[in-house]
Amino acid sequence: MAANTISLSISSTVTSQKTLHSLQNRGGLIPPPTLSFPKSSSSTTRSRVRAGPIQLMNEPAKRSMATTPPTIVEVDLGNRSYPIYIGAGLLDQSHLLQRHVHGKKVLVVTNERVAPLYLDKTIHALTIGNPNVTVESVILPDGEKYKDMDTLMKVFDKAIESRLDRRSTFVALGGGVIGDMCGYAAASYLRGVNFIQIPTTVMSQVDSSVGGKTGINHRLGKNMIGAFYQPQCVLVDTDTLNTLPDREMASGLAEVVKYGLIRDADFFEWQEKNIEALLARDPAALAYAIKRSCENKADVVSQDEKESGLRATLNLGHTFGHAIETGFGYGEWLHGEAVAAGTVMAVDMSYRLGWIDDSIVERVNSILKRAKLPTTPPESMTVSMFKSIMAVDKKVADGLLRLILLKGPLGNCVFTGDYDREALDATLRAFSKS
Amino acid sequence: MAANTISLSISSTVTSQKTLHSLQNRGGLIPPPTLSFPKSSSSTTRSRVRAGPIQLMNEPAKRSMATTPPTIVEVDLGNRSYPIYIGAGLLDQSHLLQRHVHGKKVLVVTNERVAPLYLDKTIHALTIGNPNVTVESVILPDGEKYKDMDTLMKVFDKAIESRLDRRSTFVALGGGVIGDMCGYAAASYLRGVNFIQIPTTVMSQVDSSVGGKTGINHRLGKNMIGAFYQPQCVLVDTDTLNTLPDREMASGLAEVVKYGLIRDADFFEWQEKNIEALLARDPAALAYAIKRSCENKADVVSQDEKESGLRATLNLGHTFGHAIETGFGYGEWLHGEAVAAGTVMAVDMSYRLGWIDDSIVERVNSILKRAKLPTTPPESMTVSMFKSIMAVDKKVADGLLRLILLKGPLGNCVFTGDYDREALDATLRAFSKS
Repeated sequence: MAANTISLSISSTVTSQKTLHSLQNRGGLIPPPTLSFPKSSSSTTRSRVRAGPIQLMNEPAKRSMATTPPTIVEVDLGNRSYPIYIGAGLLDQSHLLQRHVHGKKVLVVTNERVAPLYLDKTIHALTIGNPNVTVESVILPDGEKYKDMDTLMKVFDKAIESRLDRRSTFVALGGGVIGDMCGYAAASYLRGVNFIQIPTTVMSQVDSSVGGKTGINHRLGKNMIGAFYQPQCVLVDTDTLNTLPDREMASGLAEVVKYGLIRDADFFEWQEKNIEALLARDPAALAYAIKRSCENKADVVSQDEKESGLRATLNLGHTFGHAIETGFGYGEWLHGEAVAAGTVMAVDMSYRLGWIDDSIVERVNSILKRAKLPTTPPESMTVSMFKSIMAVDKKVADGLLRLILLKGPLGNCVFTGDYDREALDATLRAFSKS
Repeated sequence: MAANTISLSISSTVTSQKTLHSLQNRGGLIPPPTLSFPKSSSSTTRSRVRAGPIQLMNEPAKRSMATTPPTIVEVDLGNRSYPIYIGAGLLDQSHLLQRHVHGKKVLVVTNERVAPLYLDKTIHALTIGNPNVTVESVILPDGEKYKDMDTLMKVFDKAIESRLDRRSTFVALGGGVIGDMCGYAAASYLRGVNFIQIPTTVMSQVDSSVGGKTGINHRLGKNMIGAFYQPQCVLVDTDTLNTLPDREMASGLAEVVKYGLIRDADFFEWQEKNIEALLARDPAALAYAIKRSCENKADVVSQDEKESGLRATLNLGHTFGHAIETGFGYGEWLHGEAVAAGTVMAVDMSYRLGWIDDSIVERVNSILKRAKLPTTPPESMTVSMFKSIMAVDKKVADGLLRLILLKGPLGNCVFTGDYDREALDATLRAFSKS
């Protein structure tokens, strides 16, 4: 059997930036066609995503949290479509959850940090006025380093010991790690049961809870094992952000910035004006950022559920970021922190390729710094660590690493394997030790 | 949180068989509607399944194994449709496999018993005249007791270490355990890659390789963790049966008998005439039994891929059988041996309910005994072991255990939770210790 190698050419010379701009692809591999994605137009968004406050009660909306109707963003996936409910106090509106629970048994999957804060409230919302439903729960250790098979097995153990059948519903209560693990457990348990996402971090509310990507990490790579599996609904109660640590708050904003960069320049410009308000947890600013992020995500996922092209653009900065998470140790940096540094690296490479103006480089650096996010990888990361981990990235196809890079005016990106390898090398050398 | 209990009522009195025939359902639970499935008509089969020898070469068919065209049974699942190729010497017809390999890397998943026999041949078939493809392989320990998460992780380890990307193809080379594990690994690796089934046992050729059920066991229940995930093709080379141990041979026939009982009386009658020929590995008899079994399976799966009703009928005898496999220890009995004893129990219960004639009971016992299969569970199985394991069966819905039972003339069955609990108790008592 032939040895398998990934082509990530290692250049032994430093090439000046100017030269790089005019370099042609010398890799010798025939790359797949570049997919180019222009800035989203409002009309496109509007045609695929139905968003807006929907009056669920007959009385006029009050300021009381318990009765404010949610904003609803619909993820349009045919018979697997589902709503994202966004608003303050939604965990007090038990009908929102209960309408999506089929069967008589629910398993809430949460972690040690979230359980004391919101587990009782969630169980109350699931069971009040609904005596036929019984709720079990499993409380996992907190953190990315537990997003593994051993921890996943605890969910299966609990489900089987509780005799949950095919009509049961799994509920993910927590951040991205909990959502990904609970979703994959739901996809696999008895070959698939219903599940509901209740994201409690900015990261999960604006990104990971929407779109059906579920999975766990392998010691050699992030999210290597999983499934595309859509929830019945996503319930975003923005009140849960009141208990979120500052570092987690900032981490989630890295994904908010991403939507602006890849497809929504207006949103990026809004963020430039409002980043401090977001960090200060201004409710109106947060609600807008979450809604607009979910609209962007829902629009992309509706067009490309299984990531054959467009959806990959949501991974701007993630290939570099995953390498940081894997190489530096799961949980040392938060996902959004790694994505922030990875985004700066992707933007740097886009500039080296001559694909974007330097003003974009500066604006990205500036907004991420204002968001208190790192803009360089940890010092311990080396060029060879980046290369070996990036070689097993899910976007590698037939040995060719494809990346999401910015190209053109703000809000435009490409997903491509057709780039000069020396630009990648130069970026890696600029941001890490040899 | 309320305790979860499964309703499997325990009767303290022995009821005579005659009384049982007229008993009504006293469970107090409202059962889901009974699904009744009449014997399949040829016309239905013909409309859903396209079967028949297809001439793949211009020259007339010769007796040479290498050039005999395969019989093809198509599994009709829209854009996930795929062919089952059946014939002698198909591993020598490399174009059959190669047309279904996309991407440049293949991972063959096999076991310690099959690898020395067929791994080189399979790699040859995948690579001859196809220099762009590299093949890796992972050799797992043999047996149902290794169908677990620890063993599955070895497949992921190998895939990641070999840097297999999303365009890779996994190939399952072996029996049902290998097919189920490789299929689930393929469903989960990078959230899904292509896979091909090369079943090498009767059990896997007539049943488990077809229809996309994949998964692993949990110590508390069989196939509790998995996915519905369809292969690109199934390649049944009947020559591989030449190396199959007698006990494995007989085990597979339990599933062949099943198709006759649930939907194909003509096939059952053919088996009654040919069971000794099948055991003696008569090539023509085997080819016919495999083709007809695959046609039945393909027809059912095409109509109900995710087992919302009809497909469950393929589990005749399996609820009792899974309890034997789990309770007696994975691997102590072969799957088909447990299914054979389970089928006798399901038939006994059907008779106690007054749903079938005693001649069917006798014919089922007779054919299974002639096939050298057990017709009673292991002596160590107790009534309470059966009940506790059956309570976590995947066919339990909202606490109610649904079973596949025969009803009416030969070739007819029902999938129902609407049966007298005392008939189930009586069957369990008749076949196991209290």
